Amino acid sequence: MAAQVVVLYNTPADTDAFDRHYAETHIPLAKTMPGLRSFTVSQAPIATPQGPAPYHLVATLTFDSLVAIQAAFGSAEGTATAADLGNFAQAGVTILMYESRDA
Amino acid sequence: MAAQVVVLYNTPADTDAFDRHYAETHIPLAKTMPGLRSFTVSQAPIATPQGPAPYHLVATLTFDSLVAIQAAFGSAEGTATAADLGNFAQAGVTILMYESRDA
Repeated sequence: MAAQVVVLYNTPADTDAFDRHYAETHIPLAKTMPGLRSFTVSQAPIATPQGPAPYHLVATLTFDSLVAIQAAFGSAEGTATAADLGNFAQAGVTILMYESRDA
Repeated sequence: MAAQVVVLYNTPADTDAFDRHYAETHIPLAKTMPGLRSFTVSQAPIATPQGPAPYHLVATLTFDSLVAIQAAFGSAEGTATAADLGNFAQAGVTILMYESRDA
């Protein structure tokens, strides 16, 4: 058992500025969150069977449990990471949180 | 480097019927696809910071590359897996495919 935070970023107007902020500021911030076990990011482009997705980037953060996710986002580091979304994710973001298991 | 298929299932009218079909038929079918490296599924419920998500289940399938994903879905096993969506995912499904790396 583990728990995931999946973050779906809508395609921004300026993908270069998004990518730069994401790599230089947001990833280092997110990696400070306590309890973060692994953190993977998509490489553009994101495809669907019907063609390009409306998302520019998908991030998957893995923690031990939903309780660990709540603790991470309740920490000072998590608060700073969430606040940073306002600096680059103006096009919109969907955040999903769930426990998961191997199928 | 790896590549992911993320499948977001909209919440169905009958979640019990969905869960039964998913566990008994869809997972076994999906696991026959060539090149599948790992396969995780969410446990209900899926949350967002604003409340319940419109999704009932999120599946993440990991392959070596986008080429491996194309080969998997082009195989007889992949065709059968995709065709099975019509048997339980009538509420709608979003499929995202992308290469990924550790952040």
